[in-house]
Amino acid sequence: MKPVVIRNIERADPHGLDVFGVSTVHEAMGRFGLLKPYMRPIWPGAQIAGPAVTVLAQPGDNWMIHVAVEQCQKGDVLVVGCTADNTDGMFGELLATSLAARGVKGLIIDAGCRDVKALHEMKFPVWSRAVSAKGTVKATLGSVNVPVVCAGVNVHPGDIVVADDDGVVIVPKKLVADVAQKARKRNDDEDGKRKRLASGELGLDMYNMREALAKAGLVYLDRAED
Amino acid sequence: MKPVVIRNIERADPHGLDVFGVSTVHEAMGRFGLLKPYMRPIWPGAQIAGPAVTVLAQPGDNWMIHVAVEQCQKGDVLVVGCTADNTDGMFGELLATSLAARGVKGLIIDAGCRDVKALHEMKFPVWSRAVSAKGTVKATLGSVNVPVVCAGVNVHPGDIVVADDDGVVIVPKKLVADVAQKARKRNDDEDGKRKRLASGELGLDMYNMREALAKAGLVYLDRAED
Amino acid sequence: MKPVVIRNIERADPHGLDVFGVSTVHEAMGRFGLLKPYMRPIWPGAQIAGPAVTVLAQPGDNWMIHVAVEQCQKGDVLVVGCTADNTDGMFGELLATSLAARGVKGLIIDAGCRDVKALHEMKFPVWSRAVSAKGTVKATLGSVNVPVVCAGVNVHPGDIVVADDDGVVIVPKKLVADVAQKARKRNDDEDGKRKRLASGELGLDMYNMREALAKAGLVYLDRAED
Amino acid sequence: MKPVVIRNIERADPHGLDVFGVSTVHEAMGRFGLLKPYMRPIWPGAQIAGPAVTVLAQPGDNWMIHVAVEQCQKGDVLVVGCTADNTDGMFGELLATSLAARGVKGLIIDAGCRDVKALHEMKFPVWSRAVSAKGTVKATLGSVNVPVVCAGVNVHPGDIVVADDDGVVIVPKKLVADVAQKARKRNDDEDGKRKRLASGELGLDMYNMREALAKAGLVYLDRAED
Amino acid sequence: MKPVVIRNIERADPHGLDVFGVSTVHEAMGRFGLLKPYMRPIWPGAQIAGPAVTVLAQPGDNWMIHVAVEQCQKGDVLVVGCTADNTDGMFGELLATSLAARGVKGLIIDAGCRDVKALHEMKFPVWSRAVSAKGTVKATLGSVNVPVVCAGVNVHPGDIVVADDDGVVIVPKKLVADVAQKARKRNDDEDGKRKRLASGELGLDMYNMREALAKAGLVYLDRAED
Amino acid sequence: MKPVVIRNIERADPHGLDVFGVSTVHEAMGRFGLLKPYMRPIWPGAQIAGPAVTVLAQPGDNWMIHVAVEQCQKGDVLVVGCTADNTDGMFGELLATSLAARGVKGLIIDAGCRDVKALHEMKFPVWSRAVSAKGTVKATLGSVNVPVVCAGVNVHPGDIVVADDDGVVIVPKKLVADVAQKARKRNDDEDGKRKRLASGELGLDMYNMREALAKAGLVYLDRAED
Repeated sequence: MKPVVIRNIERADPHGLDVFGVSTVHEAMGRFGLLKPYMRPIWPGAQIAGPAVTVLAQPGDNWMIHVAVEQCQKGDVLVVGCTADNTDGMFGELLATSLAARGVKGLIIDAGCRDVKALHEMKFPVWSRAVSAKGTVKATLGSVNVPVVCAGVNVHPGDIVVADDDGVVIVPKKLVADVAQKARKRNDDEDGKRKRLASGELGLDMYNMREALAKAGLVYLDRAED
Repeated sequence: MKPVVIRNIERADPHGLDVFGVSTVHEAMGRFGLLKPYMRPIWPGAQIAGPAVTVLAQPGDNWMIHVAVEQCQKGDVLVVGCTADNTDGMFGELLATSLAARGVKGLIIDAGCRDVKALHEMKFPVWSRAVSAKGTVKATLGSVNVPVVCAGVNVHPGDIVVADDDGVVIVPKKLVADVAQKARKRNDDEDGKRKRLASGELGLDMYNMREALAKAGLVYLDRAED
Repeated sequence: MKPVVIRNIERADPHGLDVFGVSTVHEAMGRFGLLKPYMRPIWPGAQIAGPAVTVLAQPGDNWMIHVAVEQCQKGDVLVVGCTADNTDGMFGELLATSLAARGVKGLIIDAGCRDVKALHEMKFPVWSRAVSAKGTVKATLGSVNVPVVCAGVNVHPGDIVVADDDGVVIVPKKLVADVAQKARKRNDDEDGKRKRLASGELGLDMYNMREALAKAGLVYLDRAED
Repeated sequence: MKPVVIRNIERADPHGLDVFGVSTVHEAMGRFGLLKPYMRPIWPGAQIAGPAVTVLAQPGDNWMIHVAVEQCQKGDVLVVGCTADNTDGMFGELLATSLAARGVKGLIIDAGCRDVKALHEMKFPVWSRAVSAKGTVKATLGSVNVPVVCAGVNVHPGDIVVADDDGVVIVPKKLVADVAQKARKRNDDEDGKRKRLASGELGLDMYNMREALAKAGLVYLDRAED
Repeated sequence: MKPVVIRNIERADPHGLDVFGVSTVHEAMGRFGLLKPYMRPIWPGAQIAGPAVTVLAQPGDNWMIHVAVEQCQKGDVLVVGCTADNTDGMFGELLATSLAARGVKGLIIDAGCRDVKALHEMKFPVWSRAVSAKGTVKATLGSVNVPVVCAGVNVHPGDIVVADDDGVVIVPKKLVADVAQKARKRNDDEDGKRKRLASGELGLDMYNMREALAKAGLVYLDRAED
Repeated sequence: MKPVVIRNIERADPHGLDVFGVSTVHEAMGRFGLLKPYMRPIWPGAQIAGPAVTVLAQPGDNWMIHVAVEQCQKGDVLVVGCTADNTDGMFGELLATSLAARGVKGLIIDAGCRDVKALHEMKFPVWSRAVSAKGTVKATLGSVNVPVVCAGVNVHPGDIVVADDDGVVIVPKKLVADVAQKARKRNDDEDGKRKRLASGELGLDMYNMREALAKAGLVYLDRAED
């Protein structure tokens, strides 16, 4: 567990996954890779996808985020995991200015964030566990671009991060192309379904659920409950 | 505990309770029937009232919500309780499309919700315990239109659900007319009080609290605290 | 622990601390005095500073808030602590009308708040632990203008409260002038830093971190992680 | 929602359900009726079953528990629900002394409990949400022997409460005989299974899972993971 | 907020408050001063009272606990508050050995504790927010013997700390004698009440509650609920 | 994310790490690898170390635990991660009987456990997130012996799991020998320190902290605080 910065990581291509959004990508993945739902956007409406630059940070210490900035390229998403549960405001306007200058698309941090008003005005998107003005020190090393657990999911550097108002999902490098294809197919299918449901067709019929429900033992009764 | 769907429930008339809002209705009820405050709107500003169609669902399984759609009528509010604490995204855009096509006013779900951006654009209101992209299966039966516990309150099918930015309150069928009358009276009273308070009159005087406070032993001291 | 109302408290001058915001003030304080991050604004965008009028309330009982209104002056911020964890809606539109009539800038309450839509429309800012329509009684005394613990921080009457979208910080009376000076200096410094970071300069260089990182043992490796 | 005490409730016979324990009874019920897992015994080892005398109490107020004592008979279990989340110590040694004098088997309370050392010495079992010394008032009415929601489950007076170290389950009056029969059968089956598993037979074989697993798509690979 | 160690604090005499236990002392105080109920003993059965030596510590940093040891005398109780929520194991066997050598009665820490098995064997009592093996650094100063907020209560050095299986209560220096007297009286009263309740007398009668209940509107009904 | 069972994993040798306990091993690791502190033993006193057999399970579904039993050998520790937060009782007496028959040392499960009384009597140790009687289905596949995130830590099959009353720590395969050596050294050092501290020597002197404290700016004052 030596502190280390890995410089030349292999980045997956996002394959346009930001178009589909988190719920569709998560389904296309087979329902894996979703960060815990306590991870919320600090302002609504952003939708991004890009390769992860990862940070393993100590609670209450944002030193390694400063180190990670230099490893970021245009299109990246910074992902910060912590060695213990923490809500301190490890990230704010100055770091966002620095990341934005490098073309970074956003931040995923399993800790707190501050300067939310300024970040909203800058349109720099952040998904975090908390908002907190609590300042942090720069005292203990962690690592950059090693695998990190962020909000319950293991993230490897270069994996594709997809985030929107529904949350954050991680697509491992070698699955991206396949997931993108499945997401596109799922999306197309949903367009058709949406029209049918909007016209009043029931999901019970559209998905042919009636037989399975009856077989499972569902009973319909015609009297009022009281 | 056989899985069952009750078809012809008796629906209370909402008596225009959406006009008054949750806080006023909850007071008019005698301070009963309020769902726990973790139930929050996924977008602000909606205010609804309508009879409950109830769902008892299994955690991580939205099969019974599909079943319940068919039981919904124009003006209804769908109420989903769960057999165990769960934050999975059991409801999203397609189900909302189907409910909206039937004239359903909104959803109350003691679990997660997804596609929040699309639901906001559709103006379909949802009060939920969480936002989560986590998909669900369709594997285990529950029931529709049986009494369910939702966020700590027992809801009978046909009871009136009132929801706004302050939360969700349930008015039992036989109390609706009485509660509506009391809510109206309370509302009228508050208009007068608001004007008096806005003009600078103190609540201490308006509510005649000074004597009771003195009797309870409250002491006023004239020195600065330090 | 006799219930008491202290009338003539000494109020600190806010020294324009609302200009700087909570994160800057908290740093200028040496990272003390921040309320726990569960305290959130009920609507975004407000930024206030003013001397605290303090309330020690019983859970589920807002009697002492009514008492406290009379002790408030133009520019004050009302701060409510509770003798036990509680989320009941102890504050709503009528009390806000009364406080606004006296020129009070806002409310900090370690409990619940209701009528959030009306409070937003009135532009009366509230930072609270929860939103809840749960009504409260007026049955048990507490105190006004005694020191209270609010969300983990001890607040003395007259201390300066600073609150914005990042949270709430308390500046003790005798530190205000010094904190204001440090906050101003910090703010000026950040303007310069922001420009340098926006132009692409790295925090690693701007803060001279490279030597300290190397000394602490950070190692850079040039191979891809997998 | 008038405050009321119902005197002559119909009590179900417990049918010896305390013998089987909560997990077995919950399974025999079809996996319904289990209180949320935050309900924990204040001391380990007790195992009880008896008809519920129910209390709907206000948070921080134990007046109705005093009222309920008179309604309890030998063999009953007292079940207390609360109109809002609360951890105050609403029950202690004196109330336990009174209940024990009447032959009550134990207490289930969705709030706090105190005097745990004394209760342990008395061998009076309590399942609660919290331990807290916080005292309570006797100020606001609730009801006795009305249906109450306790830790997420609706309890009717006279329903059978089963509680042990695994938690608490509620068996509705009319299901008790059937559940007892199923619990007995399940228990007998488990005796046989336990012996087979102890001898080394695999559940995979005993439950004939291999075919279903293969059909669902499970793949076995023979290389080491790294 | 300069880091400081105050050496010669004034210690209150505990007045034998350990005899009465936390619930009785909390009542005698008028129901103030109780730490939040998440503070739990790491092993059951200890009951202590003594003057507080206070520590304001940084999360994840136990440097100031080491500093505080030197300020402790025989009979003291060490009380540790933290500038942010934290569960790291800031205290373990070695520090306990050092405190025990000085005759310190126990530790109250609003953070984590480790080596619980060893601490139990040593019979050194600890009340903490969590058990965690997470190690801490010695990097940032805090203070010793300044007022600290610990689990929601403001503690001044020298105040009397009373702790047992029900939790922890703080008695301010100048109230100790009065509280001790009231606790003794309360204790004596409870002995009498316990006997009457054990003999079957109802609290309803012993406390003369029937009239007040009737006046508040409580109604008794004689039919079975169903 | 195909469901898979890896059969022939490489197991690290535990190097006697159970002797040292979790806190010492966690320190010897450089303070990494500790599971979140919500993971608690269901009965106190067990202390184990062994190679991990890992399970990725679906919430509320213990099918893959049944599959995993066959992959376990004498001395293994079963580690179960879940694709979403869940407290259902996914493990009980029958599965424990089966694991015990194979010589498995214990279970680490980021979900619920039931039959705690029976498990205690069998002396089968379990560290879990919750105790819950809630039964689970056998419906959806997961995987066995793939890397899983359990309570915030990534666990590879064959890594050494160390668990005791302080929690659970994971030692990656290639670090075990080194960690064991450091743990032994640390243990020996602590024996000496314990004796010195027990004799009254201060940590301030034993660790030579006084100079660093003075340099960091700690000030000692000789007047009483009030």
